[in-house]
Amino acid sequence: MPKSDKLSSGGVKLLQEPQLAQFATVMADGAPQITPVWVDVEADGSHILINTAEGRLKTKNTSRNPDVAVSVVDAQNPWRYAVVRGKVVEHVHEGADDHIDRMAQKYLGQEKYPFRRPDEQRVILRIRPHHVLEQGVE
Amino acid sequence: MPKSDKLSSGGVKLLQEPQLAQFATVMADGAPQITPVWVDVEADGSHILINTAEGRLKTKNTSRNPDVAVSVVDAQNPWRYAVVRGKVVEHVHEGADDHIDRMAQKYLGQEKYPFRRPDEQRVILRIRPHHVLEQGVE
Repeated sequence: MPKSDKLSSGGVKLLQEPQLAQFATVMADGAPQITPVWVDVEADGSHILINTAEGRLKTKNTSRNPDVAVSVVDAQNPWRYAVVRGKVVEHVHEGADDHIDRMAQKYLGQEKYPFRRPDEQRVILRIRPHHVLEQGVE
Repeated sequence: MPKSDKLSSGGVKLLQEPQLAQFATVMADGAPQITPVWVDVEADGSHILINTAEGRLKTKNTSRNPDVAVSVVDAQNPWRYAVVRGKVVEHVHEGADDHIDRMAQKYLGQEKYPFRRPDEQRVILRIRPHHVLEQGVE
């Protein structure tokens, strides 16, 4: 299993598919927490992007503690996956509304994100991997 | 999303299927780590079982810090899932070899676990959930 500090082109390809990711953050008491999430990736593999909203557990946890983990396994092939440890290096508000619409296109084939709540402020958690484990990607 | 401190019968059913789980533990430095794993569940939903080996990261991390999270999403239906926060209450060695063979039957349809290493000691991490979030299970 090749280890690296960024995603390979095969890992990027996996994350560009509409594969569900699992996102782990750390609670205030130090215990881990996981959420299934949509995921995006910068084309060079240097950052993973997760779009959430202010006030959510993921946002609160990563504001306090930027250490996270992300796992993406091909839903059709459990031997093809990328597992990442990294840090949230930025909470991005600019463009986060457009970004969640793009995620809705990717995952739902819909032009607009259908679950938006009127009062929510979307935020992109920009994650820089420092340990990447990939299996079966090419 | 109903919250509970144990899996519902629908959640148990999901984990009895050969669905891949994602298992989060905490590293020595407090950062989270995720691994895709096979998963088993006690029929009453009170404990989740993950079979690993001594010396592995999962075993070392949970020996130091029993706080874990487990996420199981139906590979065919991302809206059907169980997400759990809990504690490893026991590291079970007795029966762990038979148990990994049963897991190989469940996930691979093979009578014997084919990846066993001659020098490895299998161990079951017995996890007691304290926060359970289920969606779309019945």
